[in-house]
Amino acid sequence: MKKYVYLFTEGDGKNKKLLGGKGAGLCEMIQIGLPVPPGFVITTEACLEYYERNKTLPEGLKEQVMEAIKKLEEETGKKFGGKPPLLVSVRSGAAISMPGMMDTILNLGLNDETVKALAEATQNERFAYDAYRRFISLFSKIAMGVDDELFSNALEKMKKSRGYRYDTDLTAEDLKKLCEEFKAITEREKGGFPADPYTQLFTAVKAVFESWNGKRCVDYRKEFKITPDMANGTAANVQTMVFGNMGNDSATGVAFTRDPATGENVFYGEYLVNAQGEDVVAGIRTPKPIGELKEEMPVVYQQLLGVREKLEKHFKEVQDLEFTIEKGKLYMLQTRNGKMNAAARVKTAVDFVKEGLITKEEALLRVNPSELDHLMHRRVDPKYTGKPIAVGIPASPGAASGSVIFDADEAERRGRLGWKIILLREETKPEDIHGFFAAQGILTSKGGKTSHAAVVARGMGKPCVTGCEEIKIDSRARVATVGNIKISEGDIITIDGTSGRVWLGEIPKIEPEISEEFKTLLSWADEIRKLGVRANANTPKEAALALSFGAEGIGLCRTERMFNETNRLPIVQEMILADTYEERKKCLDKLLPFQKQDFIEIFKVMKEKPVTIRLLDPPLHEFLPSQEELMIEIERVKNFRKIVEAMHELPETIKLMDPKLHMYLEPVEKVSSELMKLGEQRVDEELLRLKENVLRKVKNLAEVNPMLGHRGVRVGITYPEIYEMQIRAILEAVAELLKQGEKVNAEIMVPQVCTAQELKWVHDILNRVHREVEAKYGIKVPYKFGTMIEVVRACMRAGKLSEYAEFFSFGTNDLTQATFSFSREDAENKFLPLYNEKKILQDNPFEILDVKGVGRLMMITIEWGRKTRPDLKVGICGEHGGEPRSIEFCHAIGVDYVSCSPYRIPIARIAAAQATVKEKMGILKKEP
Amino acid sequence: MKKYVYLFTEGDGKNKKLLGGKGAGLCEMIQIGLPVPPGFVITTEACLEYYERNKTLPEGLKEQVMEAIKKLEEETGKKFGGKPPLLVSVRSGAAISMPGMMDTILNLGLNDETVKALAEATQNERFAYDAYRRFISLFSKIAMGVDDELFSNALEKMKKSRGYRYDTDLTAEDLKKLCEEFKAITEREKGGFPADPYTQLFTAVKAVFESWNGKRCVDYRKEFKITPDMANGTAANVQTMVFGNMGNDSATGVAFTRDPATGENVFYGEYLVNAQGEDVVAGIRTPKPIGELKEEMPVVYQQLLGVREKLEKHFKEVQDLEFTIEKGKLYMLQTRNGKMNAAARVKTAVDFVKEGLITKEEALLRVNPSELDHLMHRRVDPKYTGKPIAVGIPASPGAASGSVIFDADEAERRGRLGWKIILLREETKPEDIHGFFAAQGILTSKGGKTSHAAVVARGMGKPCVTGCEEIKIDSRARVATVGNIKISEGDIITIDGTSGRVWLGEIPKIEPEISEEFKTLLSWADEIRKLGVRANANTPKEAALALSFGAEGIGLCRTERMFNETNRLPIVQEMILADTYEERKKCLDKLLPFQKQDFIEIFKVMKEKPVTIRLLDPPLHEFLPSQEELMIEIERVKNFRKIVEAMHELPETIKLMDPKLHMYLEPVEKVSSELMKLGEQRVDEELLRLKENVLRKVKNLAEVNPMLGHRGVRVGITYPEIYEMQIRAILEAVAELLKQGEKVNAEIMVPQVCTAQELKWVHDILNRVHREVEAKYGIKVPYKFGTMIEVVRACMRAGKLSEYAEFFSFGTNDLTQATFSFSREDAENKFLPLYNEKKILQDNPFEILDVKGVGRLMMITIEWGRKTRPDLKVGICGEHGGEPRSIEFCHAIGVDYVSCSPYRIPIARIAAAQATVKEKMGILKKEP
Repeated sequence: MKKYVYLFTEGDGKNKKLLGGKGAGLCEMIQIGLPVPPGFVITTEACLEYYERNKTLPEGLKEQVMEAIKKLEEETGKKFGGKPPLLVSVRSGAAISMPGMMDTILNLGLNDETVKALAEATQNERFAYDAYRRFISLFSKIAMGVDDELFSNALEKMKKSRGYRYDTDLTAEDLKKLCEEFKAITEREKGGFPADPYTQLFTAVKAVFESWNGKRCVDYRKEFKITPDMANGTAANVQTMVFGNMGNDSATGVAFTRDPATGENVFYGEYLVNAQGEDVVAGIRTPKPIGELKEEMPVVYQQLLGVREKLEKHFKEVQDLEFTIEKGKLYMLQTRNGKMNAAARVKTAVDFVKEGLITKEEALLRVNPSELDHLMHRRVDPKYTGKPIAVGIPASPGAASGSVIFDADEAERRGRLGWKIILLREETKPEDIHGFFAAQGILTSKGGKTSHAAVVARGMGKPCVTGCEEIKIDSRARVATVGNIKISEGDIITIDGTSGRVWLGEIPKIEPEISEEFKTLLSWADEIRKLGVRANANTPKEAALALSFGAEGIGLCRTERMFNETNRLPIVQEMILADTYEERKKCLDKLLPFQKQDFIEIFKVMKEKPVTIRLLDPPLHEFLPSQEELMIEIERVKNFRKIVEAMHELPETIKLMDPKLHMYLEPVEKVSSELMKLGEQRVDEELLRLKENVLRKVKNLAEVNPMLGHRGVRVGITYPEIYEMQIRAILEAVAELLKQGEKVNAEIMVPQVCTAQELKWVHDILNRVHREVEAKYGIKVPYKFGTMIEVVRACMRAGKLSEYAEFFSFGTNDLTQATFSFSREDAENKFLPLYNEKKILQDNPFEILDVKGVGRLMMITIEWGRKTRPDLKVGICGEHGGEPRSIEFCHAIGVDYVSCSPYRIPIARIAAAQATVKEKMGILKKEP
Repeated sequence: MKKYVYLFTEGDGKNKKLLGGKGAGLCEMIQIGLPVPPGFVITTEACLEYYERNKTLPEGLKEQVMEAIKKLEEETGKKFGGKPPLLVSVRSGAAISMPGMMDTILNLGLNDETVKALAEATQNERFAYDAYRRFISLFSKIAMGVDDELFSNALEKMKKSRGYRYDTDLTAEDLKKLCEEFKAITEREKGGFPADPYTQLFTAVKAVFESWNGKRCVDYRKEFKITPDMANGTAANVQTMVFGNMGNDSATGVAFTRDPATGENVFYGEYLVNAQGEDVVAGIRTPKPIGELKEEMPVVYQQLLGVREKLEKHFKEVQDLEFTIEKGKLYMLQTRNGKMNAAARVKTAVDFVKEGLITKEEALLRVNPSELDHLMHRRVDPKYTGKPIAVGIPASPGAASGSVIFDADEAERRGRLGWKIILLREETKPEDIHGFFAAQGILTSKGGKTSHAAVVARGMGKPCVTGCEEIKIDSRARVATVGNIKISEGDIITIDGTSGRVWLGEIPKIEPEISEEFKTLLSWADEIRKLGVRANANTPKEAALALSFGAEGIGLCRTERMFNETNRLPIVQEMILADTYEERKKCLDKLLPFQKQDFIEIFKVMKEKPVTIRLLDPPLHEFLPSQEELMIEIERVKNFRKIVEAMHELPETIKLMDPKLHMYLEPVEKVSSELMKLGEQRVDEELLRLKENVLRKVKNLAEVNPMLGHRGVRVGITYPEIYEMQIRAILEAVAELLKQGEKVNAEIMVPQVCTAQELKWVHDILNRVHREVEAKYGIKVPYKFGTMIEVVRACMRAGKLSEYAEFFSFGTNDLTQATFSFSREDAENKFLPLYNEKKILQDNPFEILDVKGVGRLMMITIEWGRKTRPDLKVGICGEHGGEPRSIEFCHAIGVDYVSCSPYRIPIARIAAAQATVKEKMGILKKEP
């Protein structure tokens, strides 16, 4: 016959699948010699068979349970349903703990007879009947489905009739009476409370099994994709009762083997004397810190310290444990791995290695890289409970407070005066860049995670909340509203870019901490990982920051950022508005020294480390003001003239409208002609023509689908002089530094490539400029040439592209948009939330790399690319380059390096190391 | 020693690569017994060796040539450089004829001695010296590089000094003198004209070889991608001279074996008595039709008829031939396959099969399917030479004339009055659909080949020219301008959607002709082809048209077209503007009977043939008026109020502006207050609110990249009630027809799918509605379920999608956009023309399927899809489905059917058959 029942002394504590997490923990504890009240586990297999047998308990189960009870009786010297009475608890427990499964039933075994025996054995009638009434109600509710409220109503009624305030005011007699009433309720509702302890026990076990398929539990499994190979069926744990409420030599408590908030190696927990677990929850008495137990029960405390040490040594993880002290004797009731915040998890993992408990590899796997992000940014104090006024999209992590300012110029002005500023706009544009520099954080009412505001803020490491649609902005009136709340310019608000929340006023924050242990862990990660980690950085400052976080190079340096600086944007705009090659060339000649200096500075910071520079990518219209803005400006210029013109037509209107107005004709005509004269002087015709010219160009450049438009190499081919200037700036920067004896490692990258001909085209320009620069400086100027892979066709043509490209860099932001035919801005504002909610898509593919679609394309690309060029270097510079699951996938498919924003570099280093460890362990998933 | 020289009597006429096309033709003719002046071919190999040997003639070549000349001397009884003199022509001739190679040198062998011998032999001194002076100038120019003008100047000077008008006025003495002058010119320029005939001959042969690498010839090969395996080196043909200018028993002429304009089986050509080829070109005398030769030289004519028959029997293609008659004796100088228009090509191909000359398969391969398009549409008479006023993008083929009308309402109104109309707009929108019905053709100044105008016009088979940017439209003033030309409403213009040209006025047109032969050819295509051919058709009328062209089903029926009809659009708009499910549902309930009736009618037309219905695809905002339009409408409503309000503020303005205006204050105030009263009555507040509400919704629905936006199944999932209505309409239509005993074959297709979960979602709705419909009608309701493949991710997930989908239909329009990250509208207006011009892309990928990128994706998709479901049906319904090269590729990769616009069905049938034939012949390319 199959074995369904394992005594704690015989169960295999490693076999959580069979025994459940709780059962396994109990077995393990008893087997390493810890004081655990005797008991047994009914296996998850029994649960599964229960369902297979159409909800009847498996054959032989009852006999095995009765056998086990007999063992408990022998060990405790008590008797199940006898004298002194053996009482047990019954709890559920699957391999993975999940909400919705059955709670604990305590004191099982009590009935009208055994309650008396209990009173006798404990010399405490009140205690016995209190336990009995609790058991009746709990059992009736959980195992029989009686409405809980009926019992609490009866209890309240009793207290009211006696004039009591607390349950503890109830006397033994009261409780006896209550037991009778409770039994009557169950009798009425479900036809009788079972007196037989075995009936009680098997009913409770069935209830445990039933709870496995309860709605909440099933939903939970579906939601978190818990498959049968992870947890299948629940075990039932039957354990001898011990009591912490048997006097002042009894107590109950919970503890962590280390401080779960800091990870410090101190015993951490709390306890209540003469109490049961329920009392802690009831909140009537305040538990004491565990340290006080040292004074109160020194022997037990020492015992507990021994348990703590034994548990950590054995489980090699911080443990979260429950204990009860019954009449001076310690009993362990549960142990499990402790849940901790990111900082504590890092510290304990590193400490465990130092203490020789685990290896560096194991320590690395203990950390959840996504959580590390919190450590990298200032954040709102988690203790703060004030309600936010609005919630937007968390676009760039960190918290910031400041005065609301509605435009970049004003932000810059006040910033110079020392104000702390939150820039609040509907959306931002490249010409707002000086506002970003001045601001502590950015808040927009429109846009998603790849909006201009989000991308720029992340690049700068500034907090940013986007798409906060509840905020209505009237930037002309310099006021915003959220519902009834009005925010005037200068009002202080706080934004949290990690959660997307926005508060009025200044909210307490805590500073980021990169602890010594974190640094140690990162150094281990570097020893182990194979994947390179580079940064997306556009300025010397960002480059230096990236270096300080451990970047091994720059994987993406966007040159257009340099176009946006205030001293350059006007030249860039002039260049775009130019109608001839000569005019454009003149502007580009002015830009060349700026760009060259930019590159020189970045190269100087990065020294011999590679710097991948992407040639101009965005469509040209991104550098121009929007149509709307221009139209408003033109409107303003024209406004005065318009009124005047309307006046001019007024006499005619009057003639048409009403004869009785005719008498006013003459004076009106006079006024209007006087106004005409004045009006003409006030219209700045020159300005108007200029603006209208810009508007015409902007309209010409406008695109139906800018994401799929005239950008990247397409602009580079239409106006080759732009790429030529950029290439010259890069190569001359390299040459000048080499002449100064500096080290440089420049990589030139072409964006938006879809065919090898485009690469060849740029390569031809490069070759020519390269010859010219080498001739000019009289030295060899080394460089590498490569391409972004962000267009699907580039994936299909990888084998051809790698004839020209020495490296590929996946731009997974655009590649994801193209693969899904999703425009990120539109999708995140329109249907993507619904798609995630309905589980049509598990994740937001713009946050977590879609391995099944985009990932499959990447695999094909790498395979075909390396067929042509076996030493092809492959990187990824989309936002996924800083996302742990995506990094793991990149490692698995043979990517050489990831590139991410400076603040995510530590995360990437850890995630990369985890991938290597998982690969060694054979648990790395490769196939999408 | 290698054989470089082949006499016409020994060369292999099939070996064009070795002998060139001209040489092979001459060999072939002589070997089938036609009268060809004796001669020989110097092979292309000799040419290649000439280059290998650093531009010296291969060893042994001279000897072989001299040997061959000896043979000619034997055969003709003449002597090279002797008496009677043997004269030859030298011509180039590669495997493929290409411009830029050497022209003919005639009369080679003449010098001061042989010219006398020629005069003697012909008894015609003038003839001899005329030949000589021609030879000197031609040889000097072509073989020695002397400037041609020097000779013609000398000739003109001579004529002027003598007072002659024509060359023919020159006497023998004049010509003798001219020969001396010509020789002096060459002496002066290049140091002496060679008198030795062999020197002349080898110099000429070298000149032939040199011309192979001349700039024009090299450019041509590059442009048309003529690779060495197609043609490598040129041959040189040396042939005995014959003379058509030796009296009235001599003549020269060209002919086609059939009429190349109509394909009719009549001998077609022209000739000149007593003339050389040059004289025909000179245009002094008008050639006579070949028929007259029957009277003039009956014997030769009969001979020529024999030649004609022999050539066709032998070459099995219509031949284009040159002949000369020397003193009553016929000589054939050239034969090659005749170039013909599409109609003639079809007719002759079919006739040749009937005459037993070729097989049906061969006939099919003779036709160029792209050219057939011209046969399907009325077109501008090719004889018409008037200059167009503008050229746009040819968006839908065919020519049409009509009065210019600037909006759809007016077009409809005048259409009812019997006007012929060309609808002229900047661009069109769904609400213009009634204008399309009323118009003969559509002309827009914006948009490309997939603009709304283009797609709708193609669907209706109406001519359309889009993106005609030269035309500036002022639709308010109802006038358009092209440069200085003004087009007022009502003016007649003609558009040609095949070429994109636009003319003022009515231009002569010719009607399309689907000849009996074309029908025959199509029936053969149907016997042979394996690829199914379906139509994209949205209405019963289009379905019937498609059937008449041979469609085997409907591959794409767009349901949104049905939403756009004038009686439905308001309901659709109301549905979109609704804020609640209930309101939407009410509108959908109103739409259901319309859609059901649509489907019933289409099913009735198509009977048992499959009809693939695509559920709603476009984003909802496409059914609403544009922001701009709404803003203008609102502006109009507000306009009156605005003037009034401005007036109201006028007194304050006056106060601010100038003290001397103050005297007018009182009267102005009075006017303004009167106007206020009037104004308030005139503003339709209700209408204004309504419009503003619509504008708000339109703004909400606006998207940054609509192509990648909230559309297709994404809308279907957001508002499941829309798809539910459509599915119910389809299934109820099927049920009702089945009950009536009709045959129906409905296929339901989901657009824009990117993940299997979306398909499952729609499939669940379908299952539920299907149960309800079967219950309602009490019968089985069969249907098929499938998906569009137009999103790249769908390709990557093909193996999963085919778990739900019984068929795939590639939407290659969108798939191409996504694969390239090109927005078609933007690309075709911005950078795509440049890309084609610079050969960065060989073709426009929106016209010809990009096999290397999109095609590769399709191959992967089919492979993975059929791995899951081996009998997966695969079609293509993008525009490429009607493009011959794309169709061939579809056949090669295992697509089951193509679907195209009705008018392209005949083309698709031919192209599909050609693919099968090519496959049988082993010349079908599969790998992209």
